[in-house]
Amino acid sequence: MPDQLGTPLQTPLFQRVGLIGLGLIGSSLARGIKRMNLAHAITAIDADPHVCERVSALNMADTVTQDAASGVKDCDLVILCVPVGACGPLAKIIGPHLQPDCILSDVGSVKSSVVQAVEPHLPDHVHFIPAHPVAGTEYSGPDAGFSTLFHNRWCILTPPDNVVQSKADLLKDFWEGLGANVEWMTAQRHDLVLAVTSHLPHLIAYNIVGTAADLETVTQSEVIKFSAGGFRDFTRIAASDPTMWRDVFLNNKQAVLEMLGRFTEDLALLQRAIRWGDGETLFNTFTRTRAIRRSIIDLGQETAAPDFGRRSPDDQTDPSVKR
Amino acid sequence: MPDQLGTPLQTPLFQRVGLIGLGLIGSSLARGIKRMNLAHAITAIDADPHVCERVSALNMADTVTQDAASGVKDCDLVILCVPVGACGPLAKIIGPHLQPDCILSDVGSVKSSVVQAVEPHLPDHVHFIPAHPVAGTEYSGPDAGFSTLFHNRWCILTPPDNVVQSKADLLKDFWEGLGANVEWMTAQRHDLVLAVTSHLPHLIAYNIVGTAADLETVTQSEVIKFSAGGFRDFTRIAASDPTMWRDVFLNNKQAVLEMLGRFTEDLALLQRAIRWGDGETLFNTFTRTRAIRRSIIDLGQETAAPDFGRRSPDDQTDPSVKR
Repeated sequence: MPDQLGTPLQTPLFQRVGLIGLGLIGSSLARGIKRMNLAHAITAIDADPHVCERVSALNMADTVTQDAASGVKDCDLVILCVPVGACGPLAKIIGPHLQPDCILSDVGSVKSSVVQAVEPHLPDHVHFIPAHPVAGTEYSGPDAGFSTLFHNRWCILTPPDNVVQSKADLLKDFWEGLGANVEWMTAQRHDLVLAVTSHLPHLIAYNIVGTAADLETVTQSEVIKFSAGGFRDFTRIAASDPTMWRDVFLNNKQAVLEMLGRFTEDLALLQRAIRWGDGETLFNTFTRTRAIRRSIIDLGQETAAPDFGRRSPDDQTDPSVKR
Repeated sequence: MPDQLGTPLQTPLFQRVGLIGLGLIGSSLARGIKRMNLAHAITAIDADPHVCERVSALNMADTVTQDAASGVKDCDLVILCVPVGACGPLAKIIGPHLQPDCILSDVGSVKSSVVQAVEPHLPDHVHFIPAHPVAGTEYSGPDAGFSTLFHNRWCILTPPDNVVQSKADLLKDFWEGLGANVEWMTAQRHDLVLAVTSHLPHLIAYNIVGTAADLETVTQSEVIKFSAGGFRDFTRIAASDPTMWRDVFLNNKQAVLEMLGRFTEDLALLQRAIRWGDGETLFNTFTRTRAIRRSIIDLGQETAAPDFGRRSPDDQTDPSVKR
């Protein structure tokens, strides 16, 4: 996957972008905006003074402040980069201070509940266009971000029915400027699709790592030592930010419970096949899954390198390797 | 993680190693043995003529044959690199042809059932020492192997109580020659530990990929498109060899069902927390899991690079990145 973002814009899309929350996503946005010249200026807003300090030290923004209300005043785009549970309370604080014709957006992994929590606090002259870039790593904080995080990833926009199209298009241009591909969806559909492609996988990963840590028959040091057998793969997403993910599950309850129900049903079938020695059911289930990975690789959403490229089989010193 | 295997041996440990099954593991062994000079000669044995053809073309062995009985005759080490369900039938075929004092080993992911299936077919003059290198990728076949696959990975040996220690030590030297760290364990303990670090994770991954593929409310193309949200991680181990994994579950039934029971119990707790909006339980569960990944990284069993290093945040062209 190429990591090149291309040429920066000659004329920025926005005068001043306000980023609220300078974690992995917010700080990646700041870096990307600067690098691609998407705005004349950036205001970085974070309630945590230590984060503000790092943002200043890393020179990621033109203005750095802990005060959201004053910080958003002269911005024509404001993006909430906080856990979804914090979006409503923040909207209440900044709503009265947003300038006319300002675009307000977010990056939350859940959309319906964010819309419900944010909209009541916004004046009519603000354009609220929710967004969700499907990108991330297991690291958090302003030091974890990087400008290419969104490159070749999907960003889902869920504009309301009465959106001003030129504003939605402007936000689309912004995300495409960061290298993302933009997809339109309703908030409800977004929440259903992401429940299976993101929320359920995180829940399962958190759960299996927790189960392994709690066993009394196998020690934690054995689990760690022999984790290369498959377990370690799950620890990556189970190392994701706990606050962010608590809020995701609290705010997408219905879709997650539906997907979890399917998962548990299917697992019961495999459990029964193991108990009764039904090799055919196991083999058939295990055979269907290779094709899906191949499609993900073909669509450029995954590397084809063995083991995620964690180690290089293209061992230059081994003449027998013909890859 | 360094990929260097060090200096090849001056004097090989074995006269001739017979490898039965030239898939990912068998072909990695062949490449490693040659590279590190662990044997004077290699006999590659595979029932599949196409595999034999590839092994010859890749020049991985001195002798290539489809006939296991004659192939093992002059070997002082024979390693079964086949799905665990095939070990018993193979032992029956080769048992009468193994030379006196020969070491017979395997690489199976399950140990107790392999011992039960293999031992009855062996003459007294053969030393059967089961082994399991905890290493692999999601690819299969003779082209997928590489000489450094076992480097810095654990290889678990489960010798019987009456083992001739010098023979067990020789097998230990062999695996260490391939760069592996050797651990001793009983077959029963192995099966319990690997049930949680390898077998359960594979079952869960196969299951979630299957669940996602079967949904009628979300299309398969949506699942593939937005898989970077977490789902794609699971597709890697769910792309593993179906025959190998069918046999694992059929042959480690008790331990897998026990671990699966724990997993399901814990998942019910999270499900309840989501349903009742219990953010504290979710947050506490999600907080404990970061430390485990850190330990795995510290022990050299995982990369610290974000996202498994799939993309490089150390973006040289981005001056704001300070990593």
